[in-house]
Amino acid sequence: MSNVDGTGDRYVVGVDYGTLSGRALVVRVRDGVEVGTAVHEYRRGVIESALPDGGPPLPPDWALQDPEDYRDVLRHAVPAALADAGVDPTQVIGIGTDFTACTVLPTLADGTPLCEVPELRHRPHAWVKLWKHHAAQPHADRINALAHERREPWIGRYGGKISAEWQFAKGLQILEEDPEIYRRAERFIEAADWIVWQLCGAETRNVCTAGYKGIRQDGRYPSTDYLGALHPDFADFATKLDGPLLPLGDRAGVLSARAAEWTGLPAGIAVAVGNVDAHVTAASAQALTPGRLVAIMGTSTCHVVNGNHPAEVPGMCGVVDGGISPGAWGYEAGQSGVGDIFGWFVRHAAPAGLDSHERLTELAAAQPVGAHGLVALDWWNGNRSLLVNHDLSGLIVGLTLATRPQDVYRALLESTAFGTRMIIEAFVEAKVPVTDIVVAGGLASNRLLMQIYADVTNRPLSIIGSAQGPALGSAIHAAVAAGAYPTIHEASAAMGRVDEGVYQPVPENVRAYDALYAEYRALHDHFGRGADDVMLRLRAIRNAAAQPAQADTVLEVVG
Amino acid sequence: MSNVDGTGDRYVVGVDYGTLSGRALVVRVRDGVEVGTAVHEYRRGVIESALPDGGPPLPPDWALQDPEDYRDVLRHAVPAALADAGVDPTQVIGIGTDFTACTVLPTLADGTPLCEVPELRHRPHAWVKLWKHHAAQPHADRINALAHERREPWIGRYGGKISAEWQFAKGLQILEEDPEIYRRAERFIEAADWIVWQLCGAETRNVCTAGYKGIRQDGRYPSTDYLGALHPDFADFATKLDGPLLPLGDRAGVLSARAAEWTGLPAGIAVAVGNVDAHVTAASAQALTPGRLVAIMGTSTCHVVNGNHPAEVPGMCGVVDGGISPGAWGYEAGQSGVGDIFGWFVRHAAPAGLDSHERLTELAAAQPVGAHGLVALDWWNGNRSLLVNHDLSGLIVGLTLATRPQDVYRALLESTAFGTRMIIEAFVEAKVPVTDIVVAGGLASNRLLMQIYADVTNRPLSIIGSAQGPALGSAIHAAVAAGAYPTIHEASAAMGRVDEGVYQPVPENVRAYDALYAEYRALHDHFGRGADDVMLRLRAIRNAAAQPAQADTVLEVVG
Repeated sequence: MSNVDGTGDRYVVGVDYGTLSGRALVVRVRDGVEVGTAVHEYRRGVIESALPDGGPPLPPDWALQDPEDYRDVLRHAVPAALADAGVDPTQVIGIGTDFTACTVLPTLADGTPLCEVPELRHRPHAWVKLWKHHAAQPHADRINALAHERREPWIGRYGGKISAEWQFAKGLQILEEDPEIYRRAERFIEAADWIVWQLCGAETRNVCTAGYKGIRQDGRYPSTDYLGALHPDFADFATKLDGPLLPLGDRAGVLSARAAEWTGLPAGIAVAVGNVDAHVTAASAQALTPGRLVAIMGTSTCHVVNGNHPAEVPGMCGVVDGGISPGAWGYEAGQSGVGDIFGWFVRHAAPAGLDSHERLTELAAAQPVGAHGLVALDWWNGNRSLLVNHDLSGLIVGLTLATRPQDVYRALLESTAFGTRMIIEAFVEAKVPVTDIVVAGGLASNRLLMQIYADVTNRPLSIIGSAQGPALGSAIHAAVAAGAYPTIHEASAAMGRVDEGVYQPVPENVRAYDALYAEYRALHDHFGRGADDVMLRLRAIRNAAAQPAQADTVLEVVG
Repeated sequence: MSNVDGTGDRYVVGVDYGTLSGRALVVRVRDGVEVGTAVHEYRRGVIESALPDGGPPLPPDWALQDPEDYRDVLRHAVPAALADAGVDPTQVIGIGTDFTACTVLPTLADGTPLCEVPELRHRPHAWVKLWKHHAAQPHADRINALAHERREPWIGRYGGKISAEWQFAKGLQILEEDPEIYRRAERFIEAADWIVWQLCGAETRNVCTAGYKGIRQDGRYPSTDYLGALHPDFADFATKLDGPLLPLGDRAGVLSARAAEWTGLPAGIAVAVGNVDAHVTAASAQALTPGRLVAIMGTSTCHVVNGNHPAEVPGMCGVVDGGISPGAWGYEAGQSGVGDIFGWFVRHAAPAGLDSHERLTELAAAQPVGAHGLVALDWWNGNRSLLVNHDLSGLIVGLTLATRPQDVYRALLESTAFGTRMIIEAFVEAKVPVTDIVVAGGLASNRLLMQIYADVTNRPLSIIGSAQGPALGSAIHAAVAAGAYPTIHEASAAMGRVDEGVYQPVPENVRAYDALYAEYRALHDHFGRGADDVMLRLRAIRNAAAQPAQADTVLEVVG
């Protein structure tokens, strides 16, 4: 890509922080054209077994990160993207960022991560807890039980359940497992906001993560009464979160000299308020209109959709005022395994010669709907929405000696589409309209999968026009923060890209899938809503068998 | 093998007619030592697509055979086995046979198969219907419905259901689809009895197939009233079946000159009464004592066990007076898919490098019980006992991203063991004791599988000492028919072989499997006994999708 010009065009930079790497994207302000990009892989990646400097092994379900990796993305990916674009840095007017969430860290009052305080560096709880750190489930369970017991008004805004991934569960885990770290944490902050702090030197909080991951509703966090009932020392937790709260698209500050040196960008340009990878994609997918659901489909799927009113949708992740864009209520839901399941199948369940997505898709595409005689429950990685249970597992029914690998593969594709339909129907039943779907993410390129989603959901499917949806979304927010557009809506209209209605539901397929979906839904409710908890018991048996010392106890529990 | 001797030893020949080939075995009378064997593959094999001389395609679920293939086994395998043994034919004192069942054919009064009558050769219904001809299900359904409606006393002897594989269903299909063939069929006879007729020139019937496959109970067939109510022209069906009925181990006659010429054996030697491959194995496995269950484990499993009294066991295949050996009530049950399921997995669901039974078994054997977190329903080929439903299908629950091929493989092994335990418990609940198990058949060599069966059933497992259980059993019956032993029991004690108690249940595994079996049983009843008929609906959807012209109708039926 080369775009050195004398046109006087202005540019913005979007930086997308993923699980394993960060990507920078240089975008032209007037039309959203992507002119240069670069990726920087995190040196530490996901820290799951032991801290970088050694020490004892981390317990199961831990997932940490090193904040220095985030700074390195600024140091390496941004300059490389500028070089790739051939854009003069002086043409850049703003920078925006998005992050995985809830990815959260304890810091000193000046933003120094506790893991960078020398005497705390060997303490696991001093490090960044990545979104997929799942060791706080017992804490989440107590948060939920107490919220329902006290009828806390905010619990309905999260479908009735706070996730173990979120700020309060992770914070409570720190307090109870390493109280000194909790005390030393003057701030407890999303990485999405921390990186903005690094860019502009001032702490801000964005309404998106504060709402979805931080239980901030109607202008306040859970009460000190409630928090103190969880644990007396937890009563002050919200004070570690509170800070200047800004709407999405606002300018958090200007680029500091230090960050200008890292990035090669001019000091003083606009830095946009922090954001989340999924939510920021609504802007690049031109999907801010209420009713237009964005599905970001990769290893897992995240759904975001704007609505005009707040509604309580059982099992959804959350609803936040302005959580996707100012002036609307942003809804979020998710499926915890999608592309991961297809990848599992190709790697662990497909025979030689059929062990590629391409070949399996080709064979599966040749079948009439229902010809494989299978239905699967897509819970290989648990169920985020609507059941919010990581201990659920996958199921396949209908297997015969005539079943072939492409049959199972297609059933797995369909099962994730059924999972999406469950979510859509939950929204619709709660009077949150879902009129059409825009797909972003890597799976959008599988034409069979997309047609299945159109047929199963009976809704037209549009496809985002960028392969870098989150980074483009961050660039759009940077353009708004820099004042190039008055609102995210107008920036999205000018800079976002979507191919409208690429996949249309085929009526006979819709009808055929209705019958299979009825089976999926019945199995979903039977195995997911308590009629038969065999999955939970099998999980307990499995965990006990893997740790024989505890086997007796657990077998008694489940026997 | 070479055994030409001057010891004056006497020998018998056992011939085992399987689905694709026939095997002859030469056995020393005094101790059952196997001295020579040979196999002859059927030229026509299983006729499933079109008759050998061409003509229109056969409908789905048809499976025919050519009786000339059975004679060829006598012409080729018997002389070859004698040559392999190096035995002088004059030392052979008898021949016995066993057959798949219900494998049945229409003949003239002299035993000529109708398919060998030139003007009938192009008529599919004139040929041998192999046991796995499954096109008579609608006829079986009517047979069962009417039997229950009229409270026929015999229906309880078959667990409440006559199979579509058996004589009456197949006979009714002939009558209704090709009445002329039905009229021309002066005899309707099991291949087990027909081959004996070929050997000795006289028609006999054995109590085993007459009881298990022919609904002969308490000395009579179903009444003409009942048969006439099924179809007026069916009232005479039993007259086509009736004939000299002989107990197992009896001499049916002596070898005819024609058969002596085919086989190279002396004319005039004893020919034993016909028998069934599974039932005859009880003699070679030294398992004639009541309570000792024989499991013949191959692609599918057949269970036979003697009892002291007749009992009605829901879902079992049948109970017949003298059906395994005179003086006891013989019980039969079965699992329609066992080794077939493991083979399916290796071929269609195991990735490169793990696609062998040996490698998967090795990895699976290293796991503690329950560590895979899976339970499967072993219905890939339907369920014979206890549910008697070919339209049921397989299910796996507990799949996660961490599930590996050896996990699923082990769960499949276990699922068939759970299926066996269901059958054993049904016997025990009906007061038919099952104290221990003798395993015969190809799967007996898988040590992991055998240990799983011992642990799941909590019973000691013995292993038959011959790789040719059915042929050895037929040879034992030949020795009795020739008068070398007074009863099958004494012949079995002298000539049969079993390795006693090779696998003993391990108490901690037994306990761990109790928890998994409880899950299996709950799923078994939920999906197999009507609480959720999703498997049947998926089968209907699949069949309709494969034949789009009928899709509308069927979707309405299941919708």
